[in-house]
Amino acid sequence: MSDAAYVHGYSVREAARLSDQAGALSRLLHHDTHYPAGSHVLECGCGTGAQTVLLASSSPEARIVSMDMLPASVEEARRRIEAAGFGNVAFQTANVYNLPFNQRSFDHVFVCFLLEHLSRPLQALHALRQVLRPGGSITVIEGDHGSWYCHPQTPESSRTVQCLIEIQARLGGDSLIGRRLYPLVVEAGFRQVHVSPRMVYVDDSRPELVEAFSKNTFIAMVEGVREQALSWGLIDANAWDKGIADMYRATESGGTSCYTFFKATAVK
Amino acid sequence: MSDAAYVHGYSVREAARLSDQAGALSRLLHHDTHYPAGSHVLECGCGTGAQTVLLASSSPEARIVSMDMLPASVEEARRRIEAAGFGNVAFQTANVYNLPFNQRSFDHVFVCFLLEHLSRPLQALHALRQVLRPGGSITVIEGDHGSWYCHPQTPESSRTVQCLIEIQARLGGDSLIGRRLYPLVVEAGFRQVHVSPRMVYVDDSRPELVEAFSKNTFIAMVEGVREQALSWGLIDANAWDKGIADMYRATESGGTSCYTFFKATAVK
Repeated sequence: MSDAAYVHGYSVREAARLSDQAGALSRLLHHDTHYPAGSHVLECGCGTGAQTVLLASSSPEARIVSMDMLPASVEEARRRIEAAGFGNVAFQTANVYNLPFNQRSFDHVFVCFLLEHLSRPLQALHALRQVLRPGGSITVIEGDHGSWYCHPQTPESSRTVQCLIEIQARLGGDSLIGRRLYPLVVEAGFRQVHVSPRMVYVDDSRPELVEAFSKNTFIAMVEGVREQALSWGLIDANAWDKGIADMYRATESGGTSCYTFFKATAVK
Repeated sequence: MSDAAYVHGYSVREAARLSDQAGALSRLLHHDTHYPAGSHVLECGCGTGAQTVLLASSSPEARIVSMDMLPASVEEARRRIEAAGFGNVAFQTANVYNLPFNQRSFDHVFVCFLLEHLSRPLQALHALRQVLRPGGSITVIEGDHGSWYCHPQTPESSRTVQCLIEIQARLGGDSLIGRRLYPLVVEAGFRQVHVSPRMVYVDDSRPELVEAFSKNTFIAMVEGVREQALSWGLIDANAWDKGIADMYRATESGGTSCYTFFKATAVK
């Protein structure tokens, strides 16, 4: 679903990470998304189906088409949906810049964790607007890696996160896209644009988030670009390893951390 | 109310800024704070009374004692409360480290925008715990200047904000205190500690926040340390002025910004 190299890779650990993230954060991100019975919904960039399961579950009578540009991801998503027993999702392999759908053929479009990986997110939104009927809605959920901070924070932990941001930028994406969702969706021609931040705040009193988000989602994502960061000379190994250790330190007793997702809704 | 130099100064513009902030952000920060009739409430660090008015209004039958270490601020707060017609607030000039109250004499303690200016916030919380009755509550609201980011962001805008953070640190305070409220309040011996982040997200669709928060609160606060930053050699004038201009740019069409306050509640 991306025209840039996919920064997260496609390993088993990555799939587990994305699944953890979808589980722990599903209420925060998705509790206010429900599509009516019979409505025709396009999920663009379904990946291996982590969000597809949530969509199918929260809108059981909507007719959902979930697409991704990678056949292997689409097959994995299909298996996941079948295993979960949902019958309201059709799958398709397609590219967002060349959508194989009629204009104005969907009532709603749903996009989650896609635009950050695209070099032309505005063009992608234009393309999605084309297949949406007038009066239909779009929902876009993206993270913003620059929104992360922790206590205690160190220069090295900040630098490791900055490496992820820079690598994603070099690969053609923008991991700071959350903060610019509003102007992007406005510029793509949508109206009634509303953006709400969804902050994940983690401290000792929220151990499930320490595991599911801090360790298994965010730090795992940063750790995933270690070799890239070192081979590109963005940081040396000692600083990297200290930065990662410092991030883990902030997940221990007395530590806190924050990360913010942004959810945009708008109408064509 | 601080043992460190007060980074915000005491000018007329500062008073207006603090008043703006109290007005625009009062719902976000204070909507869930109400004290019962007859309860004895200590507001520690009332300054010129911006929050005192909100407290007196939302808890009209509580008996509030508002204190600050600066007699001039206390007098201004007293005039403000009298002008607003509230009769449920008594004022006192006192220092948080040497509280002139009996142990266990308050049902509730309220602290807002105070700890960031103290060199010994933990000791202050210990002192406040002493004057609280067992089972009484404490509420602490603080900002975190490191939580700020915007779009479009530039190296210079980041540096100007970093100057404010560094100046406040050199003056003995900690403007990153929001993220460490949880461990501080826990370490001070309180229980049932709960921290909730309160993010101010600003885009074109929220013009009142552009004015009241982005321009008249946050950027005004950063601008307030210009001379200090230059005289201490933290930044040169050109970079400073570009940084401020870039921050204003992010308040214009297509720009966004985020800042997070943290609210802790706990029980003795």
